[in-house]
Amino acid sequence: MSVPQFFESDRAGIEEALDRLLPKEEAHPASIHKAMRYSVFAGGKRIRPILCLEAAAMFSENPVAAVSTGCALEFIHTYSLIHDDLPALDNDDFRRGKPTCHKVFGEAIAILAGDALLTLSFQTLAFVPVEPQRRLNILATIAQAAGTDRGMIGGQVADLEAEKKTPDVGTLEYIHRSKTAALIRASIVAGGIAGGATNEDVERLKCFGENIGWAFQVVDDILDVEESSAVLGKTAGKDQAQQKATYPALYGILQSRDIAADLAAKALSELDFYGERASRLRELAQFLVARRS
Amino acid sequence: MSVPQFFESDRAGIEEALDRLLPKEEAHPASIHKAMRYSVFAGGKRIRPILCLEAAAMFSENPVAAVSTGCALEFIHTYSLIHDDLPALDNDDFRRGKPTCHKVFGEAIAILAGDALLTLSFQTLAFVPVEPQRRLNILATIAQAAGTDRGMIGGQVADLEAEKKTPDVGTLEYIHRSKTAALIRASIVAGGIAGGATNEDVERLKCFGENIGWAFQVVDDILDVEESSAVLGKTAGKDQAQQKATYPALYGILQSRDIAADLAAKALSELDFYGERASRLRELAQFLVARRS
Repeated sequence: MSVPQFFESDRAGIEEALDRLLPKEEAHPASIHKAMRYSVFAGGKRIRPILCLEAAAMFSENPVAAVSTGCALEFIHTYSLIHDDLPALDNDDFRRGKPTCHKVFGEAIAILAGDALLTLSFQTLAFVPVEPQRRLNILATIAQAAGTDRGMIGGQVADLEAEKKTPDVGTLEYIHRSKTAALIRASIVAGGIAGGATNEDVERLKCFGENIGWAFQVVDDILDVEESSAVLGKTAGKDQAQQKATYPALYGILQSRDIAADLAAKALSELDFYGERASRLRELAQFLVARRS
Repeated sequence: MSVPQFFESDRAGIEEALDRLLPKEEAHPASIHKAMRYSVFAGGKRIRPILCLEAAAMFSENPVAAVSTGCALEFIHTYSLIHDDLPALDNDDFRRGKPTCHKVFGEAIAILAGDALLTLSFQTLAFVPVEPQRRLNILATIAQAAGTDRGMIGGQVADLEAEKKTPDVGTLEYIHRSKTAALIRASIVAGGIAGGATNEDVERLKCFGENIGWAFQVVDDILDVEESSAVLGKTAGKDQAQQKATYPALYGILQSRDIAADLAAKALSELDFYGERASRLRELAQFLVARRS
């Protein structure tokens, strides 16, 4: 399964917008802006913004609102990686093959750079060019997905609490759905709203997003076991070393692959309604579960 | 100068709303919600929400929108204290007479609790009951004031960078206006918008808020030198020990008092336009610069 053809052009549009929305590196005080830019431009695949763009494209030919929404999502994703890598959390020295933010800028600036990206995300969302109530819906969708109530932070906390315990199915599900699937689901739903999706569309996108996001994290767990650090750009085998709650730890590799495939199939079935209109989103989903890094 | 009579009843309304808006302590995952509540209910004076309430009260008799806006401001203020107290930043063990968040819950949960309060702040603002464009204006005002561009994080970074250097006037001004005055100004402006202020009102409130916020931080610097830890509820004399850029360090105590008084006078002159309508906001401003803790 190769990278979809449209991936690189979507990504180029996002890179340009990220550069436009981030404060200039020399803007005062420079150290924080350097750190924010360092982490945002450290080689992320831009999966969330691209999902956002392609979800919007099903409903509108104008990508402008989805591009800035996608950048806001990437700011949140990046802040979560910066804070996650801190010594008090996962204590990671490398991310995407580069030294982590706190290794380069020190812990104080890394903490503040994460805070600043989270703040910038909502500042960006406050100006997404769609009508005000739709803009607020986008913002509320993303805030919920980033928070503690079945959102990203809730998942990170549950993940921390589950370390060194034998994971049970319920805990593992909660962690994966909250830590990863929530923001991926929000990327797709927010993109849909930015493009003009109806309430019925939003319900379908939620179900698609939830399941593809969940599958994405199961695949992430599998890759952590199967691939080398060189391929992943981060320390491989860390989940096992840190005794993280993962699908391979609970089900083994083979059954984990089946679970990811089932989740992906469930996700894709939600797109049947849209026929050809969903072909890019479908291709993207298939790529996300078949990827090797 | 005693505490204004309305202070306690305003505060009671805010406490109740904070309790309502924060996730319950037992909500899953409990550790993060305990940490968020611990820090929010660690004895803050609620200055920002009360300024927000009283600014709104100049334009509307209905306080509901200002109460939730005020809570969002308090969430941001609390997150900034949690992160500021971390070992990598100010490394404070006590805050308001109680052990700091990371001393009680550990660094990982403290970092995530700060993140969660910042996220909850914007989630709360997305539902402030005023018409959508006004709500977005409130949100954008607060996001700017919390960010890196002449906002709170920018001030914190400049503060870190200025440690152990001889502060110059420009740097000191930048730090105080960004680190403290920006969010206080935003509290007053956002309250005004929530209450229905016109653009001309907003300009007056900006100028009032900027100057009273700046005076507030100059007074804070003076109190750090003059008062005991017991009165302040935090370690006194820390600014000097950490060689922070402060007004007393640059101007001495007496001249710093004059500067605070001048800023307060300039702030108050902006309220002349409103006559009696501004009497509570005026009383509040006078209290903030005359306080002893």
